[in-house]
Amino acid sequence: MLLHLSTWTEVEIYLQQSQGIILPIGSTEQHGPTGLIGTDAICAEAISRGVGEETQAMVAPTINVGMALHHTAFPGTISLRPSTLILVVKDYLTCLVKAGFTKFYFINGHGGNIATLKAAFSETYAHLEDLQIPNSAKVQCQVANWFMCGSVYKLAKELYGNQEGSHATPSEVAVTQYVYPEAIKQGYLSPEVASGHRIYGAVNFRESYPDGRMGSNPALATPEHGKQFYDLSVEELSKGYLDFVKAE
Amino acid sequence: MLLHLSTWTEVEIYLQQSQGIILPIGSTEQHGPTGLIGTDAICAEAISRGVGEETQAMVAPTINVGMALHHTAFPGTISLRPSTLILVVKDYLTCLVKAGFTKFYFINGHGGNIATLKAAFSETYAHLEDLQIPNSAKVQCQVANWFMCGSVYKLAKELYGNQEGSHATPSEVAVTQYVYPEAIKQGYLSPEVASGHRIYGAVNFRESYPDGRMGSNPALATPEHGKQFYDLSVEELSKGYLDFVKAE
Amino acid sequence: MLLHLSTWTEVEIYLQQSQGIILPIGSTEQHGPTGLIGTDAICAEAISRGVGEETQAMVAPTINVGMALHHTAFPGTISLRPSTLILVVKDYLTCLVKAGFTKFYFINGHGGNIATLKAAFSETYAHLEDLQIPNSAKVQCQVANWFMCGSVYKLAKELYGNQEGSHATPSEVAVTQYVYPEAIKQGYLSPEVASGHRIYGAVNFRESYPDGRMGSNPALATPEHGKQFYDLSVEELSKGYLDFVKAE
Amino acid sequence: MLLHLSTWTEVEIYLQQSQGIILPIGSTEQHGPTGLIGTDAICAEAISRGVGEETQAMVAPTINVGMALHHTAFPGTISLRPSTLILVVKDYLTCLVKAGFTKFYFINGHGGNIATLKAAFSETYAHLEDLQIPNSAKVQCQVANWFMCGSVYKLAKELYGNQEGSHATPSEVAVTQYVYPEAIKQGYLSPEVASGHRIYGAVNFRESYPDGRMGSNPALATPEHGKQFYDLSVEELSKGYLDFVKAE
Amino acid sequence: MLLHLSTWTEVEIYLQQSQGIILPIGSTEQHGPTGLIGTDAICAEAISRGVGEETQAMVAPTINVGMALHHTAFPGTISLRPSTLILVVKDYLTCLVKAGFTKFYFINGHGGNIATLKAAFSETYAHLEDLQIPNSAKVQCQVANWFMCGSVYKLAKELYGNQEGSHATPSEVAVTQYVYPEAIKQGYLSPEVASGHRIYGAVNFRESYPDGRMGSNPALATPEHGKQFYDLSVEELSKGYLDFVKAE
Amino acid sequence: MLLHLSTWTEVEIYLQQSQGIILPIGSTEQHGPTGLIGTDAICAEAISRGVGEETQAMVAPTINVGMALHHTAFPGTISLRPSTLILVVKDYLTCLVKAGFTKFYFINGHGGNIATLKAAFSETYAHLEDLQIPNSAKVQCQVANWFMCGSVYKLAKELYGNQEGSHATPSEVAVTQYVYPEAIKQGYLSPEVASGHRIYGAVNFRESYPDGRMGSNPALATPEHGKQFYDLSVEELSKGYLDFVKAE
Repeated sequence: MLLHLSTWTEVEIYLQQSQGIILPIGSTEQHGPTGLIGTDAICAEAISRGVGEETQAMVAPTINVGMALHHTAFPGTISLRPSTLILVVKDYLTCLVKAGFTKFYFINGHGGNIATLKAAFSETYAHLEDLQIPNSAKVQCQVANWFMCGSVYKLAKELYGNQEGSHATPSEVAVTQYVYPEAIKQGYLSPEVASGHRIYGAVNFRESYPDGRMGSNPALATPEHGKQFYDLSVEELSKGYLDFVKAE
Repeated sequence: MLLHLSTWTEVEIYLQQSQGIILPIGSTEQHGPTGLIGTDAICAEAISRGVGEETQAMVAPTINVGMALHHTAFPGTISLRPSTLILVVKDYLTCLVKAGFTKFYFINGHGGNIATLKAAFSETYAHLEDLQIPNSAKVQCQVANWFMCGSVYKLAKELYGNQEGSHATPSEVAVTQYVYPEAIKQGYLSPEVASGHRIYGAVNFRESYPDGRMGSNPALATPEHGKQFYDLSVEELSKGYLDFVKAE
Repeated sequence: MLLHLSTWTEVEIYLQQSQGIILPIGSTEQHGPTGLIGTDAICAEAISRGVGEETQAMVAPTINVGMALHHTAFPGTISLRPSTLILVVKDYLTCLVKAGFTKFYFINGHGGNIATLKAAFSETYAHLEDLQIPNSAKVQCQVANWFMCGSVYKLAKELYGNQEGSHATPSEVAVTQYVYPEAIKQGYLSPEVASGHRIYGAVNFRESYPDGRMGSNPALATPEHGKQFYDLSVEELSKGYLDFVKAE
Repeated sequence: MLLHLSTWTEVEIYLQQSQGIILPIGSTEQHGPTGLIGTDAICAEAISRGVGEETQAMVAPTINVGMALHHTAFPGTISLRPSTLILVVKDYLTCLVKAGFTKFYFINGHGGNIATLKAAFSETYAHLEDLQIPNSAKVQCQVANWFMCGSVYKLAKELYGNQEGSHATPSEVAVTQYVYPEAIKQGYLSPEVASGHRIYGAVNFRESYPDGRMGSNPALATPEHGKQFYDLSVEELSKGYLDFVKAE
Repeated sequence: MLLHLSTWTEVEIYLQQSQGIILPIGSTEQHGPTGLIGTDAICAEAISRGVGEETQAMVAPTINVGMALHHTAFPGTISLRPSTLILVVKDYLTCLVKAGFTKFYFINGHGGNIATLKAAFSETYAHLEDLQIPNSAKVQCQVANWFMCGSVYKLAKELYGNQEGSHATPSEVAVTQYVYPEAIKQGYLSPEVASGHRIYGAVNFRESYPDGRMGSNPALATPEHGKQFYDLSVEELSKGYLDFVKAE
Repeated sequence: MLLHLSTWTEVEIYLQQSQGIILPIGSTEQHGPTGLIGTDAICAEAISRGVGEETQAMVAPTINVGMALHHTAFPGTISLRPSTLILVVKDYLTCLVKAGFTKFYFINGHGGNIATLKAAFSETYAHLEDLQIPNSAKVQCQVANWFMCGSVYKLAKELYGNQEGSHATPSEVAVTQYVYPEAIKQGYLSPEVASGHRIYGAVNFRESYPDGRMGSNPALATPEHGKQFYDLSVEELSKGYLDFVKAE
């Protein structure tokens, strides 16, 4: 059940049965010479919708710009600052909690969002308790990273070994190929790819990773792989969501 | 050319030809008992993509949650506070200006966004000039509201007369029916609909407009109307965009 | 009844009869080579006091610095950033609502304030509802622009036609001449005046409008005209204020 | 020279001779049963204009709402939070420094503003240095409290002794009587007046000082006294201003 | 009783007897060529612990970075901006008030903190009242500057006369020598020391005070003096604390 | 080399040899019925000083209040909100970068700080690049959690097995016993201890973990264990620090 394709009266009915909602969050950032800038949002959105169908959960519109400041030396990247993203999450949840939602399951497509999301959850819990909003003590948030699902990780290792890398990975590129086969990019990828550098600021990142990839070989990706990753993560995260909403 | 389906190297090439970008912005808010919560984002996104195709312009990911605080007494509405939306716009544009973009054309689907967007533009111009970012004096933003296009307004009057209303209008509902025919909602709409009240806070809004509509009869909408509105606004806004990027 | 010339006990008595208050808001910004930097605040203050006398309404001290970032490339301009002005309005109204005021009528002298004021109203409604301040659901704000009064607009067209322009207009200059006849400025005004450029950042504004005027010929202004504009706007806004406080 | 009655071209000429400006700052707060709510702004404005005439200095529009949170349990009080006032001062000075001003002399009418003003100066110096604005290292701010002038203090002690008190004092009431003789208030003042309590929050303040006065007997004030206080403070602060702008 | 060496159950018991707490606040800033960068925090912490022992009061962990922006042109200085320090104080007190504390006694080692602390107290009182936190009307904060104790001031004058100066003073250096005899620094001190300049921004400060001292001769300090200053301030502030918590 | 026991001239000399600095960060939060509220700060500070001695690195004053909002339902806990902690880190680093430091090694004693610290690093990198501060591209931050050192983890498992738990652990309590043997607490610890609950808001946390422990048995701690943990973490983090400052 997609929130943006629902009416407010449908939401009202939904809330009588469930107080859970899935919030897809991605990023708009460079993914190497052949990866889509929207990769993280595309994956999070597609998988969230799959989980929503599987579990009958409400799915909110995708937060398609996240925390990607370290990628901003590459054109096309858009990032919120962490302090802004915290406010965005706080605003979203304040609205939704007032309406009756209490269980927030963020399906995340970007590692760089995790720290800020966790900070935002803490900030939001305290904010809601400060305002003494009804049910504020019941509010629970969880971030579920599809790319860290055990089954996904295992398949990526099997298919790509070390060439999975950690950014612009063949696994995430594969999912985008499965979702948008019309947008599969061809392009030269140097056989040498940087890896192993820590992440600091944007200028430093581009010096460390000149073409944007981090140890990955996205040329290995196929749409068929993408479907496999999609299926695995939908299955695993559906279970995760159901456990989450069931728990006290 | 959709930013999220492009690579950073494609953006780099694009910037050699154009510094313009279209940013669709909608809202996630109640649209009466039969209108989709995502109506404003759906319309803005579809029309933006149409304009992007027509003009070869880059189209950014849709900002699908905007300033809809007055709708937050209806479940399913998500809103940023104006101060948050200002920061979001500032963050987006700071990234994009550093990459070389200077012309920002916001195609907007929600009247409630306009004031905050204008405030955000002022805040951003000053911020970029303060930071002495190259090209900051060339940065220009414009908000183009598809529903205020002359041709759209005229057709709405012809088709619906006074029943167009001002929120959950048949014209916007028609566009969503054209884009998502599978999500056309049936539902009882009282023949009596509130209208003429000013907009203040969320509690007051729901008292004034009990079912969320403002003077509109969305039952008049059809997907065929939607296509007409879509075509008219794409045509008019394509011209608007080209004039904008051409101007000094 | 001027708030700054009242005592707190007089305010207490006033609140038993009315919860309305007029807040004049202007700007401190260049108004061309012969217009006063305080033009917008002078007009808003004078007209507000006139409306206050006419309607027995309380009039708050004038907010004499508003949102004029686009004028800041001319010396003497002082502006708040939109995000600051939002906080200022929120602070003002939080104090006044706690005291019992609920109807806030901003008489505005500067077009550049409108967007930020509207954003500030939305931000404030939500803030007060979040804090669960008594009467927060009754709080209503309205911005009334004296220069957009129908009668004012009509007279300006009659007197000045196209030479009214849109900034440093003869009509607003006339009002300042009526209020401060001792401060009427003589000075050379080029017969050629820029017009038709959109407003972006401060540097761009000064390039577009080198002497600060926007299509206007303030040399046409006279103190007698000023009195006429003053009388018309006081009459029209007094009616507007009374309608506003009467409405639910 | 009053900024709001000047044109930008006059400011441009002024800046060739002086980079100094006087900023009157007051407050909008209860001043006991017979004192005007605008007392602090009225005094600061009148004295600032006197100093401006004496020294040929530019005088900015009055900041008539300051930091008066502890008075907000009395109706009619309007206060900025300290964090907002800091932003306001920062915004004012950023505009004025870019225009060429470097010496900011705040003539202050309210003890409650002092701490926040000093904090704001520190915040602003660092902000301007961070932005690397030209002349930022030359920017100097000073707060000059008219009521702490040696000559004023001495006269108040002579005229009123202990009945001067520390809020709603006869000396400040006298100045308002001199400036606005038409607004002299009669009203019962209990011979018993609270004094000696420390200032904490607004609720506590009203408990400690039930009628708003702090140890003062404003019934002793006369317009003639007001003129004396005015003359003394104008003389002393004029010297203070000239010393300030002359110093490196 | 030191908070950091207590358990939460001990705090719970303490709160049944007292709602008072001492918060040491210092600074991390240059103190001339021979003064420790931690001088202000060291003094505040040592004296606070002395007062805590004397009065059985709870002592919070030391805020060892304060408002020292004007010292930031000397390496090793760390400062919060005033707006940040306000938030820090607000966060501290919000936590402690919720737990039951209402009397906050800040023992301060740095003159530059005073203004911002006072602003922070005002901000916090209003914040807590806005949130309607129980006991918010009882919350009281006080800043007690050890170096402004009458007995301390008198001894400093006796021992050092004019060579006490106003920063990197022999009295504060003496206290650090008493607390950390192992960290007594030898170093050349020019017999000429700047004094009498007002404090503005960081660049200006270093120009005015090239070696960081303000009119002081810290070479006069001895650990024995330090003990005397310590004893005097502990005695005087213990009395101050007890008066503070006893008062309504 | 402890910053607070150094002079600015010593810092100046240090910076010629190294641009690295260690920043200890802890928390002030409940640690169960027998654990010290300052546990995390005590551990971080002691270990940081050990690393500082081992590596000749500068050690900044300890940030002894961190992000512990989830512990605030227990008295004595003090927490910054994440958004405040981000500002604090940004302010610290802005000062230190201007002075010449570029390598920031945060030795952290509290798991709850990690997410916010990472967010703060991203925010700070972008802030410094925006300000175009010299060397901003060289700025690097790292968070090193002593309790996640491989050697520490291994020893804790050996000594305590599952009774190590995840908060108020015997390992961290042991370190505090080693550092403050005079503050070893005796107290009843229920043999049943909650574990396995996720962390959400403060109210929920206390419901889940009624005595504050998370699956731990701190009664197993001894000062001798503490010394072992201290030695292991100093050794491992010294190596970590040296690798960090050496890397480009």
